[in-house]
Amino acid sequence: MTELVSSGYKGRARELLEQGGATVGSLVKVKGVDGAETSGLVVPRYEHADPEHVVLKLKSGYNIGISVENIQSISVVEKSPTVSTFGQVSAILQQAHGRPKGKTSDKKLLLISTGGTIASRVDYRTGAVHPALSAEDLYSAVPELGDLAEIFPEVVFSVYSENLTPSDWQTLSNSILAKSRELEQKKKGRADGVVVMLGTDTLAYVSAALSFSLNGFDLPVVCVGAQRSSDRPSSDAALNLKAAARFAVSSGTEGVFVAMHESENDDVIAIHSGVRVRKNHTSRRDAFESIDVSYEAHVIGNEIKMRAQDVIPVGDSSTKSEADLAERFRLKTSFNPSVALIKFHPGFDPMVLDYYTRRDKPVKGFVIEGTGLGHVSSATVREIGRLSKEGVFIGITSQCIWGHVHLDVYETGRDLIEAGAVPLENMLAETAFAKLSWALGNFEPEQVKEVMLTDIAGEFTQRIALVGRRNS
Amino acid sequence: MTELVSSGYKGRARELLEQGGATVGSLVKVKGVDGAETSGLVVPRYEHADPEHVVLKLKSGYNIGISVENIQSISVVEKSPTVSTFGQVSAILQQAHGRPKGKTSDKKLLLISTGGTIASRVDYRTGAVHPALSAEDLYSAVPELGDLAEIFPEVVFSVYSENLTPSDWQTLSNSILAKSRELEQKKKGRADGVVVMLGTDTLAYVSAALSFSLNGFDLPVVCVGAQRSSDRPSSDAALNLKAAARFAVSSGTEGVFVAMHESENDDVIAIHSGVRVRKNHTSRRDAFESIDVSYEAHVIGNEIKMRAQDVIPVGDSSTKSEADLAERFRLKTSFNPSVALIKFHPGFDPMVLDYYTRRDKPVKGFVIEGTGLGHVSSATVREIGRLSKEGVFIGITSQCIWGHVHLDVYETGRDLIEAGAVPLENMLAETAFAKLSWALGNFEPEQVKEVMLTDIAGEFTQRIALVGRRNS
Repeated sequence: MTELVSSGYKGRARELLEQGGATVGSLVKVKGVDGAETSGLVVPRYEHADPEHVVLKLKSGYNIGISVENIQSISVVEKSPTVSTFGQVSAILQQAHGRPKGKTSDKKLLLISTGGTIASRVDYRTGAVHPALSAEDLYSAVPELGDLAEIFPEVVFSVYSENLTPSDWQTLSNSILAKSRELEQKKKGRADGVVVMLGTDTLAYVSAALSFSLNGFDLPVVCVGAQRSSDRPSSDAALNLKAAARFAVSSGTEGVFVAMHESENDDVIAIHSGVRVRKNHTSRRDAFESIDVSYEAHVIGNEIKMRAQDVIPVGDSSTKSEADLAERFRLKTSFNPSVALIKFHPGFDPMVLDYYTRRDKPVKGFVIEGTGLGHVSSATVREIGRLSKEGVFIGITSQCIWGHVHLDVYETGRDLIEAGAVPLENMLAETAFAKLSWALGNFEPEQVKEVMLTDIAGEFTQRIALVGRRNS
Repeated sequence: MTELVSSGYKGRARELLEQGGATVGSLVKVKGVDGAETSGLVVPRYEHADPEHVVLKLKSGYNIGISVENIQSISVVEKSPTVSTFGQVSAILQQAHGRPKGKTSDKKLLLISTGGTIASRVDYRTGAVHPALSAEDLYSAVPELGDLAEIFPEVVFSVYSENLTPSDWQTLSNSILAKSRELEQKKKGRADGVVVMLGTDTLAYVSAALSFSLNGFDLPVVCVGAQRSSDRPSSDAALNLKAAARFAVSSGTEGVFVAMHESENDDVIAIHSGVRVRKNHTSRRDAFESIDVSYEAHVIGNEIKMRAQDVIPVGDSSTKSEADLAERFRLKTSFNPSVALIKFHPGFDPMVLDYYTRRDKPVKGFVIEGTGLGHVSSATVREIGRLSKEGVFIGITSQCIWGHVHLDVYETGRDLIEAGAVPLENMLAETAFAKLSWALGNFEPEQVKEVMLTDIAGEFTQRIALVGRRNS
C-alpha cells in the first residue's frame, strides 16, 4: 500500500481505500452513506491536501472530492497498474465507461501545446508537477472538445513557461502561421481559430508578444492555461480549454485573447485582451485580470457574451490610416532578445543599466517600471540620459500596475523626458517588454519610439487625464 | 494677464477672471447665477484640466471648482502679488477671513516632513510640482490640526521620495526616535503619536522599513501622503493628514500604519498596515490597497472604526516568546544598502545577479519577484545556487502581487529551494526588500534567513494552502 501513502492519502480516506483494495489509478465505485454510487478513477492527493476526502476523476473529466464521512464503502471495478497522465486516465475511463459520440462539428481548431500546468502531470514520486502532456493527450482527456470542432493538435514546446524566451515567442509565432498554412494546403480546409496552451506564469507576456507578431492574422488566437494541473481535484484545465476552443472557433473575432476563470466558480470564463491582462494572484483560478479595461467577452456554458464596447482604445493610431497600420505592422514575427525589464526601487543602482549595455550581447532597449507616475531617482535619470544619447531605447511604465504614467507633473518626470525616456502611457510593463522586443526585432532603431507609441493591438486605453479608472 | 494663461485658465473661465481683474492668488468673491456668493483664493489650473471651471481655495483649506455656467461675476476682495505655497495661501485666507479658535487638545503629535506631494507646491512657471512645504507650512495650511493635538513639526528631508534610499530610512528612523525623546526631555511631555508625511511613490517601501526599524516603539507611527498637491483642486492632502493625525493621537495602538483615501470620495480614510500595503494606481486618490488582508481601520470624520480581527497574522513568531521577539528585534534602526530587488522576466539575464555581487559595494542579498508561485528560469536557478553558496541571501516573492509563493509544487520551485533560495510566503516584494535591508543591517549573515522568515510586524498573513484570498 505504499502507493497510497506516497500519493497523499492518510487517515480514514486511506483506510477506506485499503479496505476496498483500491490504489491510485483504480477504477472504483464509491457507495455513499445515502446509498448513492459514484464511479471514477482514484486520483492522487496533493501532499498538503486535507486527509478527509477521497478524490475521483469522473467520466466527464472533472475531479470531485468525496468526504470520508459520506462514504459507506469503496469497491474496485478495475485495477490499472500505473496511471501517470490525465490522457491515460481519461482513455481508461472512456474504455471503462464508453463515451457517447456527440455530433462532430464542421469547425476546425488548431490546438497548440507549449507546456505549462494545463498540459502537465503530477510526478507521483515527488508530488511535483511536470509539463508532460501532449496536445493529443489533453484532447483525449477533454473529449468534449470533439463536439466543438475537429481538432488539429500540435506540440511546439514542452517546457515550463518561465523558460520561454523572446526567441521562443518567435518560434511559436512562426509555428502558428506555418501550421495554419499547412492545414489549408493539405486541403483539409481552413482553421476557424487557434488555441495556444501555455503556462500561466508567463502567459500574459506571451499573449502580448503574439498580439504584435500575429497582428494581421485573420484568425482568433486564444491563449489558455490552468492554475491546477489536470489530474488534481478542482482543476480548471478542462473548463478553460473548452471555453478557449469555443471562443476560438465561434466568436468570429480576430486578435489575440486570454481565456481563464472569471471567478473561483466553475461557471464563467473571461476572455481578456492579450495586451491588457495580468496574472494578479499566485494560485487562484481567477488569477488573471484585465487592467484598466473590462474583459472582452464571457463564455458561459455554450454561450459567448461579448461585452458592450464601453471603452474605446485610442492612441496614435487615430492619425494612421488603417491600411498603413495593416501593412507596416502585419505579421512581423521577429523578436529581439536584447531587451530588459527593470523594476526601479529605493537605492536602485543605475549602473546595472550600464552593465546591460556592455555585456556580450548589449541590450538595445529597456522597459523601466518607475514608481507612481513613472519616476526614478535623479542618479538613474542621469544614466538614462547617457544611454539614450547612445541610442538605447528607454520606455517608462509604472510598478503601480493600474493607471497611466505622467512625466509632466513632477520635476523628476520632466527631467526624465529631457533625458530621452519615453513614457508609455498605461501600457502594462509586461506588454511593453514584449512589444519592445518585437519592435527591435522588426524595425530600424530610429523607428522604435514611434512604433512603441503607436496603438497596434489595443495596448493603450483611453487616456483619462490625471484621474485613472480601475477595472470595472 | 499672462499669469492667467500660464496658470491654465482658458476660454470663459479666463474671461470671467479678466473681467473681474483677478489673477491667480487673488482673494475673490464669486457671485453665482443663483445669487449665492463664494469667497476664496484663485488657484492655478492644472494644464490638462478642463477649462470650464474656476477653482477657489476655501477658508477650510479645501479647493472647489465652480462651473463657469453657474458664475454671474467675479470681484476681487484682495489682490496678492505672488502666492506660491499652500501655507501662504492659507495664511492669507486666515488673515482675510479670520479663523475661529477651536479648543486646544491636550494631545501631542510629532509631525515629520520628508517631502512628497503632500508637502509640495506647484511651480507656476513650469506647472511642475516641487517638494517645498515645511511641516510648519502644512500645519498652518490645515489649521484644524490644532484642534486635534498640539503639533510639533520637524522637517527631516525635503526630497522627492524616489530619491530616498535605505540609508535615508535609517536617518528617518533615528530622527523619529530622537525627536520623540527630545520632546519628552524638554518636559513638554510625551507625544501621543507620530505622523510622517511622505511622497506616495515610495511610501509603502518606507512604511515597511519603519515597521521593522521602529518595532518596539510604543507610539503609533502613521505614514501619510497625497496624490494631488495641496494647492490643486481636489487635493487629498488635508483630509489624509487630518485622519492620520487623528489616528496617531487617538487610536491607542502601536505599530506603523499608512493613512490614505479609501475611495475617490472625500469621506473615508483607510488605515493600512505598514507592511501589507501597496500603491496600486498611478494617480487615483485611493491608490493604496491592503494586499491579502483587510485595512486596519477607517477614519470617518471624527470617528475611528477599527476593523474586526478576521485575519490572524501567523508566522514563525508562534514558536517565539513575546519577550524574545521584543528583545531581539526591538528598535534596531540600521539599514544595509547592499540589497537589490529584481523582477524576473522571460529571457532574464542571470548574470545581472553576478554583476551586483561583484560591484564596488557588493550586494549581500536579493529579493527576486519570480513568476506565478515564485518561479525563475533554469539558468537563473543555477546562478542562484552559485551565489547562495557564496553566502548571498536570495529571497523569493511573486510579481503576481496577491497570494503566496509555493516552491514545492513544480520542479523549478524544488530546484530553487535546493539551490538555496528562500520562499518568502506572501510577503510583499517591497516589504521584503525593506526587511532584507534591515535584516542585513542589524544581524549576522547566518541569522538573516531566520529573521526574514520570522513574522515581526504582521508581514505574513495566514497561510491558506493553495487557495489564496484576495483583499476583501
